[in-house]
Amino acid sequence: MFEIAELGHAVKKSVYNEKVPELRTQLLLAQEKIKQNDFSVIILISGVDGGGKGDVINLLNEWMDARYMRTIAFDSPSDEEKERPTFWRYWRTLPAKGAIGLYVGSWYSTPLSNRVYNKIDDSQLQLELMRIRQLEQLLIDDGTLIIKCWLHLKKSEQKNRLKRLEKNPDTKWQVTERDKKHLEMYDDFVKVAENVLAETSTGDSPWLIIDGSDIRYSSLTVGQHILSRIKQHIEHREHLKQNQPLDNHLQANDLQQNLLDSLDLSLKLDKKEYNSKLSNYQGKLNKLSRQAREKKRSSILVFEGWDAAGKGGAIRRLTHAIDARSYQVIPVAAPTDEEKLHHYLWRFWRHIPRAGQITIYDRSWYGRVLVERVEGFAKLSEWQKAYSEIVNFEEALSDHGTLLLKFWLHIDKDEQLKRFKAREQISYKKHKITEEDYRNREKWDEYNLAVNEMVTRTSTQQNPWIMVEANDKKYARIKVLKAYCEQLEKMLDTKK
Amino acid sequence: MFEIAELGHAVKKSVYNEKVPELRTQLLLAQEKIKQNDFSVIILISGVDGGGKGDVINLLNEWMDARYMRTIAFDSPSDEEKERPTFWRYWRTLPAKGAIGLYVGSWYSTPLSNRVYNKIDDSQLQLELMRIRQLEQLLIDDGTLIIKCWLHLKKSEQKNRLKRLEKNPDTKWQVTERDKKHLEMYDDFVKVAENVLAETSTGDSPWLIIDGSDIRYSSLTVGQHILSRIKQHIEHREHLKQNQPLDNHLQANDLQQNLLDSLDLSLKLDKKEYNSKLSNYQGKLNKLSRQAREKKRSSILVFEGWDAAGKGGAIRRLTHAIDARSYQVIPVAAPTDEEKLHHYLWRFWRHIPRAGQITIYDRSWYGRVLVERVEGFAKLSEWQKAYSEIVNFEEALSDHGTLLLKFWLHIDKDEQLKRFKAREQISYKKHKITEEDYRNREKWDEYNLAVNEMVTRTSTQQNPWIMVEANDKKYARIKVLKAYCEQLEKMLDTKK
Repeated sequence: MFEIAELGHAVKKSVYNEKVPELRTQLLLAQEKIKQNDFSVIILISGVDGGGKGDVINLLNEWMDARYMRTIAFDSPSDEEKERPTFWRYWRTLPAKGAIGLYVGSWYSTPLSNRVYNKIDDSQLQLELMRIRQLEQLLIDDGTLIIKCWLHLKKSEQKNRLKRLEKNPDTKWQVTERDKKHLEMYDDFVKVAENVLAETSTGDSPWLIIDGSDIRYSSLTVGQHILSRIKQHIEHREHLKQNQPLDNHLQANDLQQNLLDSLDLSLKLDKKEYNSKLSNYQGKLNKLSRQAREKKRSSILVFEGWDAAGKGGAIRRLTHAIDARSYQVIPVAAPTDEEKLHHYLWRFWRHIPRAGQITIYDRSWYGRVLVERVEGFAKLSEWQKAYSEIVNFEEALSDHGTLLLKFWLHIDKDEQLKRFKAREQISYKKHKITEEDYRNREKWDEYNLAVNEMVTRTSTQQNPWIMVEANDKKYARIKVLKAYCEQLEKMLDTKK
Repeated sequence: MFEIAELGHAVKKSVYNEKVPELRTQLLLAQEKIKQNDFSVIILISGVDGGGKGDVINLLNEWMDARYMRTIAFDSPSDEEKERPTFWRYWRTLPAKGAIGLYVGSWYSTPLSNRVYNKIDDSQLQLELMRIRQLEQLLIDDGTLIIKCWLHLKKSEQKNRLKRLEKNPDTKWQVTERDKKHLEMYDDFVKVAENVLAETSTGDSPWLIIDGSDIRYSSLTVGQHILSRIKQHIEHREHLKQNQPLDNHLQANDLQQNLLDSLDLSLKLDKKEYNSKLSNYQGKLNKLSRQAREKKRSSILVFEGWDAAGKGGAIRRLTHAIDARSYQVIPVAAPTDEEKLHHYLWRFWRHIPRAGQITIYDRSWYGRVLVERVEGFAKLSEWQKAYSEIVNFEEALSDHGTLLLKFWLHIDKDEQLKRFKAREQISYKKHKITEEDYRNREKWDEYNLAVNEMVTRTSTQQNPWIMVEANDKKYARIKVLKAYCEQLEKMLDTKK
């Protein structure tokens, strides 16, 4: 794979000096266009030691407008990063629309080095690479341009380079034991890299392998590659705009069974039973949540349901039992403009809890396949791919050891109307009922379909939906409390 | 001071049950009004051990709408927090306009406990309290309502409480060695607390001291206090709106000496000298910046100056010498909507570098006293108090050991016009010149006055402005490079 990058390409100084000014102008113009076209660009500069990653990065920073480009390097994870799923640290660095993120090392570094050092085996590496492909695909689907460059250096060159550095008293300090060790491991490293590059070169985000032996050659090549990818991307977007695929609001396939209709909404609890169960489960939850905090295990609770299904009430019965210092309720409303400049999952990644903490989402990322689908805010192609994006996202949470519970609070249409009317009678609840709520009611059937499809497609073994029969508020609240207690108990039993 | 809180206030259950529903309704309505009136509320719940802070916090969370209130508790600082000035961790938690931040412990906790444990002496405590007053004043001036509650418990009560807890096998675990130690230190603690409360009870943000021996009494009292403060605050804002103080754009006093005019703009370097100095200082800077990174010392560089004064060019000559992984350039444009919901300094606190990193602000917080003043975006009273807010902010940076350099790049009006014209000839610079730039030129004299006042009022011993004669770009760039090198050298020499 690397043969072509071992031919010893070089560019004469005179040629370089002639070509750079034009390239620079073009790159600056391209940056302008990125801003106008409102997409984000991720440039990954990876490669072997001594391949000149730092030099190329520094040159790109000189050539381009540093105000709309940020260089991102990863040291060892901070404790705030370690306490969250691995990809959290990448999500927090993703460039906004209109900007460029220039990555030195990236999501590839850890799996690569872990495999070389035999900390993970081949199948674990494959799994990591699959996750990377998913991340990249999700960003590409959101309009992001990903440009991946690999700077190669053949073994003899790497050896010579270290010798050269060691000879010169001014640069001797640059050669560390680690460098020498890496030289010994060169063959292993290249073998793993070959595998990684092959597995993650996709049509939309191929790797470009570049001979890193001559900085003039490699920086010019990287610069020109970036330029042509950006131009191509803009053309592609233009083309798409003019040739929009049909995006009708197709009726989704009727599901063979309507899950919602199968729920028994007559389930209820009488007041006495409710009160006794409530204090019982709240006591239990109080204890369990303290234990979880001590053991640094975190939870994420997602509440979805019809308007007036009692999400708020159920959340309050939960939080009543939990120390206020342990949880945070995130009400999901319209995204802020910073959030709008990122992938729709970004604003949920922001609030992923630290170790031992609880985040409760009052509505969630499922808005993509509910309100955004029904109201037409998301295109058919967008909400359809959201199912798998969401499943992958939730998998990342569970893999980190976070307990994830998703509740759908279900009521029927009559019960909803009754509650709207009742709310209108209570001074401090009146403001909760707006005309929009009545408008949404009219789309009940469409929402019904969307909910059914959501539940079917995003209930996984690991993260199933918990369907809560909520015509009786008391029954619903206890079911929620009980489910959380049971899952906490189960989690605390297992070692992690 | 605490006598009144030792009288053993208590509220009967029947009275409590009667009063809570009305209080709750009122609190929810108040939350609505906070949103409508668009100000933020900070509620601090502090006090002695066993004073019931946790219980009160949990009750408030139950009573109020958790979606617009966040409970904030501080564990020991994370490494991302430790690497930045102390107050960074508080700034990042500040509630946006329309929301409430409920603080368990706060900026008071550390100074208080440090004094009790004799880790700091009285004068150091005074200094900390002064900083707290400055922070609170700055927030209050921005429209924030700060409500501070202190839950007190007399010594005998505290003793009894521990005994009670220890007797019951279910609660025994709650009593730790730390609690027992704190009981022994009760008198010291109360003495320091008295001092702290006295020093930080201001007209705008007084402390309310509450008897914490009865949770019904204390929670009702805190709830009612919060309610009345919110009502009062809203009234106050209404009143202000109707009785706006005259806020004419008064001509600021003529400064006795015009600093800008005293700069010698004929200073220049010839090309040969420039090239030799450039590579010399860049080499130096490269070395120094690497050392600073290794020693985990961070820098903040601020660039201000006339349009076309050459900020971008000077920044590029600097960054050229620095590894791209070490620095970040923050271009300061219009604030995002999340930023608009906070104090104007918040968006600069966001980018304060971690240990060993460099942040370069291309324009900065000084916009408050430059463009916002001249264009009338900030009121007279607002930009006038900004001088001291900025001085305090910068002091916090320096106290943390961050190297702060502030450059004013100065050119004259003719030079500016020449550069505008020149830029219009260069394809990739053309977009930088807009009609606005010409409009700004017309206000040259007003800007001149503002710059003079800014430099005079924010040049401190610790953080002086560095005035850069920039009619000759080469001279300016070398002056900037040289200044940074010298200051880095000085910093690296001293131990920290």
